[in-house]
Amino acid sequence: MFLKGSSIHISISRFSVTNVLQPADMTTLPKVMICGNPRWAHDEVNELFNGIAQVIVDDAPNRAEFFARFEPGGPYEGTVGIYRRNISAARIGIYDGGLIAGLPSSVKWIAHNGAGYDLVDIHACKEKGIDVSNTSGAVDDGTATTALYLIISCFRHFSWGERSLRAGTWKNPISSALTHDLTGRTIGILGLGGIGLRLAHLVHAFPMRVLYYSRNYNPEAPEWCEYVGSMDELFERSDILSIHVPLREDTRHLVGETQIRKMKSGSIIVNTARGKVLDEEALIRALEDGHLASAGLDVFPDEPNINPRLLEFLQNVLLPHVGTRTQDTEKKMEVRAMTNLRDFLTTGTGKDLVPELR
Amino acid sequence: MFLKGSSIHISISRFSVTNVLQPADMTTLPKVMICGNPRWAHDEVNELFNGIAQVIVDDAPNRAEFFARFEPGGPYEGTVGIYRRNISAARIGIYDGGLIAGLPSSVKWIAHNGAGYDLVDIHACKEKGIDVSNTSGAVDDGTATTALYLIISCFRHFSWGERSLRAGTWKNPISSALTHDLTGRTIGILGLGGIGLRLAHLVHAFPMRVLYYSRNYNPEAPEWCEYVGSMDELFERSDILSIHVPLREDTRHLVGETQIRKMKSGSIIVNTARGKVLDEEALIRALEDGHLASAGLDVFPDEPNINPRLLEFLQNVLLPHVGTRTQDTEKKMEVRAMTNLRDFLTTGTGKDLVPELR
Repeated sequence: MFLKGSSIHISISRFSVTNVLQPADMTTLPKVMICGNPRWAHDEVNELFNGIAQVIVDDAPNRAEFFARFEPGGPYEGTVGIYRRNISAARIGIYDGGLIAGLPSSVKWIAHNGAGYDLVDIHACKEKGIDVSNTSGAVDDGTATTALYLIISCFRHFSWGERSLRAGTWKNPISSALTHDLTGRTIGILGLGGIGLRLAHLVHAFPMRVLYYSRNYNPEAPEWCEYVGSMDELFERSDILSIHVPLREDTRHLVGETQIRKMKSGSIIVNTARGKVLDEEALIRALEDGHLASAGLDVFPDEPNINPRLLEFLQNVLLPHVGTRTQDTEKKMEVRAMTNLRDFLTTGTGKDLVPELR
Repeated sequence: MFLKGSSIHISISRFSVTNVLQPADMTTLPKVMICGNPRWAHDEVNELFNGIAQVIVDDAPNRAEFFARFEPGGPYEGTVGIYRRNISAARIGIYDGGLIAGLPSSVKWIAHNGAGYDLVDIHACKEKGIDVSNTSGAVDDGTATTALYLIISCFRHFSWGERSLRAGTWKNPISSALTHDLTGRTIGILGLGGIGLRLAHLVHAFPMRVLYYSRNYNPEAPEWCEYVGSMDELFERSDILSIHVPLREDTRHLVGETQIRKMKSGSIIVNTARGKVLDEEALIRALEDGHLASAGLDVFPDEPNINPRLLEFLQNVLLPHVGTRTQDTEKKMEVRAMTNLRDFLTTGTGKDLVPELR
């Protein structure tokens, strides 16, 4: 109530065809769909597609109506590309196999707004010949900063300290016997894509010692960023593990009982990727018997539901999936997703085609 | 209750004379006093003073008894140097004018454990010919990391997000309209000593644009760290101000109404120095009318009491003065304070003599 600013209501009409195109162009240009309105990149959507595409805005109230509008003569007929934002799921559901199967053959590109694309069925898209892009680079700064925050708070018990102050107990529960500086500690980065590499640079400022494991050696990694030969070695050598791999079938519970037990006693795990990459029950067991000192989590297996047992460990740091929740990052993501769609129209492909479809 | 480790009870006898010295040395070596037991540097205290000094441990229950023990024939007679830790205040009070006046003329050095030495009356020490050292460098990493945490949390509303999750409202109150990435923003560092310079390096990793104002240009500042000619300019140009000046008579309310109003609307103030350097009433007024977006505070004017109005601003981030509360930093501080005392004994002065006494 004391805050400046306010959220901005976006009028759908702002993206209507008449704002974007001259009437003469309307029937000759390819049709792209905004499925989930952008919040910040209003001017950019006009600039990106002006003279290149007809922009239509999906506002179908449910999936049946969504499909119906693709019928011949319907307003979505002939759509070739879709800009997708997660909020559209509230109306038409996620882009699962059923949704992808129902799309007309005219659709060739889905520009997903987000780094993680586990809400788009990539296999179904591949079978149907639809390419999918994400917004990987746009989220690096926001997400890595979130991981850095969780790392600091876990090492220092700052979240617990804040709650203690607000509960009127000052710093009484915070013991320096259990808190550490980051400097000189070893971080293991699981997955050195854009976010992991960005985090590496942020923690190198202390410096922390940086190890990483990825499916492949990352040639962009600086020399102080040490590639270890196996996941086992990463877990064995790290004081803190930070997870930066996408959720796929083969990464579900990638960090489980066996891996956690390879970590040193008193280690910390931070997750800003996807909740299901980490076996929550194994994590809780390791917190219970003290093998892990704490967990810093921005993501959970069943969001927005939180396993109440995570709250019992006072030293845990738990954020409500806000890794990219800034207007700066949201705008970068919107522009990047739409740029992929524009590049598909003008060049036949977008820069952020997801790895499974390359 | 699920935490590993525990606080360690320190036996005073561990620092008794017999543990440190051979009996033959006891009467010939100068006497130094531990006033407030160290918590971590047990081995170091023995190493530092072995063969150089008799180490006595103050455990006087009150100030009168403290003074009485300095009398001829008393156990503190002839003490030349004192290692002082703030916890001693619970027994004998702070080192105010009265305490300093009551010390015998044998005392020539007080090695205070802490960067801030506002609980030691420097003027009284100067008049009496007692030199005072602090532990400035030892706290740089811990305190600057605390400032970085407050900066991230204020920009991102992470503290608020954590409380929302724990209250069962997920991310609902967190609006990206009010949250920002750090990258590319301008930070103003007020006081570029060791802590300020350390913070400059940490935020440069993003990078943020770094401005500073100090009484003097700091020759150790890298070229990307811009010295501005006046405090006014620092306030006018910064998106976030971080305070790193000690509390002295001339810095009390250094950041007040006039300075705060020079900041841009929507700015943030972070304070990890001393509460009284910032005019709390002026801060609250600026939060109330929205001129300031938020405040990140580790220090308060009347600790451990908190002005309840600070809690009303949900976006504020409030820590219970834990800027140096890690075993790594605490140990560094203990070793540095005792090294000053040892250097005084062996060379006549310590490296961290406070500026007022140089």
